Amino acid sequence: MWISDPIYPVFRTRHLQRLIEKGLDEAVQFDEDCPTRLAEAIRYSLLAPGKRIRPYFVLLACALCGGDPSNAVPAACAVEMIHTYSLVHDDLPAIDNDDLRRGRSTCHKQFDEPTAILVGDALIPLAFETLGKLSSPALTGICSVELARAAGASALVGGQMDDVANEKNHNSNSDSASIELLERIHLRKTGALIRVSLRLGAIIAGASNRRVAALDDYGKNFGLAFQITDDLIDVQGNTNTAGKQVKKDAELNKWTYPSLLGIEKSEAEAKRYVNEAINALSIFENDYPEKEILTKAAQNLIGRSK
Amino acid sequence: MWISDPIYPVFRTRHLQRLIEKGLDEAVQFDEDCPTRLAEAIRYSLLAPGKRIRPYFVLLACALCGGDPSNAVPAACAVEMIHTYSLVHDDLPAIDNDDLRRGRSTCHKQFDEPTAILVGDALIPLAFETLGKLSSPALTGICSVELARAAGASALVGGQMDDVANEKNHNSNSDSASIELLERIHLRKTGALIRVSLRLGAIIAGASNRRVAALDDYGKNFGLAFQITDDLIDVQGNTNTAGKQVKKDAELNKWTYPSLLGIEKSEAEAKRYVNEAINALSIFENDYPEKEILTKAAQNLIGRSK
Repeated sequence: MWISDPIYPVFRTRHLQRLIEKGLDEAVQFDEDCPTRLAEAIRYSLLAPGKRIRPYFVLLACALCGGDPSNAVPAACAVEMIHTYSLVHDDLPAIDNDDLRRGRSTCHKQFDEPTAILVGDALIPLAFETLGKLSSPALTGICSVELARAAGASALVGGQMDDVANEKNHNSNSDSASIELLERIHLRKTGALIRVSLRLGAIIAGASNRRVAALDDYGKNFGLAFQITDDLIDVQGNTNTAGKQVKKDAELNKWTYPSLLGIEKSEAEAKRYVNEAINALSIFENDYPEKEILTKAAQNLIGRSK
Repeated sequence: MWISDPIYPVFRTRHLQRLIEKGLDEAVQFDEDCPTRLAEAIRYSLLAPGKRIRPYFVLLACALCGGDPSNAVPAACAVEMIHTYSLVHDDLPAIDNDDLRRGRSTCHKQFDEPTAILVGDALIPLAFETLGKLSSPALTGICSVELARAAGASALVGGQMDDVANEKNHNSNSDSASIELLERIHLRKTGALIRVSLRLGAIIAGASNRRVAALDDYGKNFGLAFQITDDLIDVQGNTNTAGKQVKKDAELNKWTYPSLLGIEKSEAEAKRYVNEAINALSIFENDYPEKEILTKAAQNLIGRSK
């Protein structure tokens, strides 16, 4: 198992883990109309040993809001499908041209480029089809629109588009403008999907708008801290911890928190976001174990890169 | 205007045309979180002068089932977004490597390859977000699942996967097995999205299952006839009529109806499917003008390639 990331064990309660892996596995049992090689490549990509942070967030948010996490499994699977498609497409030769992902060959390396494009293209609608397993068509409709926005041109894809440009040219001419752009990229590229994971869990539990907003705020700050620590892993970590190639950002001359702020200040920024994330949870009662798990998950971001 | 396809004027009632073009245009007004270049490339691809066959089918099916077509505009836009994304990705260098589409440069030629990948990736969730404009969350949920299936690994993407393989190697060793595979490709690659267009229109009108099934059957047969005539255009037509490069199938050594059956038999097959499509409409009363439009649309498929 390649995952030695310290945030992983916090999330990994066996009950939730089983719900997620079973849900994902069931969602990729295709009928004979799906070509064998496509099914194989989808399973290869989706069932690779990922940290499943987003699905855990869906289930934990649901439980924290008093819902039964097993009702939220379709949404947990859906966000992981969107996340996985984004990795498969980001890794393509035309974009990041990566060979290694989740400790294995990337999809286009293991299969081929057309297959990797089509795996991504199939995972997106599969996410929305999977939301059809929620308890009512109305809940499916509400969650679909939430997920669609998070995966769309003003969120996930927009962040990725700006990130591709970030590799190519640096338009801003001040460090503060650069940090601002970098934050805007992360808010969309990483943040949007983490936020919607927490929102979906809360919505499925029937939570109040106030609770949905609090979890959204946790997700926003967690996402920013997560991205900074990811950048720090790229500078300091090794391929074994990351499960993907490291030192890549510098090679691509990419802006990152450490390259703009230095390591020390980046760590301070990460800590600030971690504290914001934990503060966002203050409206929830302490006797829910999920509150503690979410708190620890945020705290454990510090030290990921060590 | 490059469109001289004879099926086009049948559909094109000014009222429906306005609903579709206005709906599409409004759906791609992005906020500032969408990078300018991405927004531009999405608009370039989606607002290109397409025939809009699928959106017309949504609106016509809705009207034929007694609904107000303006209620079905979000679904009409959604199917066109899925169709457009599939064209943008099919045209990519790694797949069909096409330079011309809808009478203009393909997206990756006009912009670049990463942008074209991301345009497709953004159009899929945009389709599901747009379904959120339907009259209720429950209707959004039902239509989302229908569209997701049609766009998925066992339908649109599965058909495309087999079609890519069709270009590379011919596994079957008899003509009847080849025709069967070809039909299976078309049923998924072209048929699934046409069928779901008709289904969505009927569902939004609150039609009975029997009427939804009849329109689905029309769509299935229309789709097959459409694909055969498309293959015939590729052999006989010119780039000006098609709006894309022709004679490409033979160049790629692709199986097509004309290459397997010859032109005369292909035309006979197309006629047979046209008649099946028209028969499927027999349960609808004659006094709906939409019945006549759908009948004529099918009849006009014959002669597209002339």
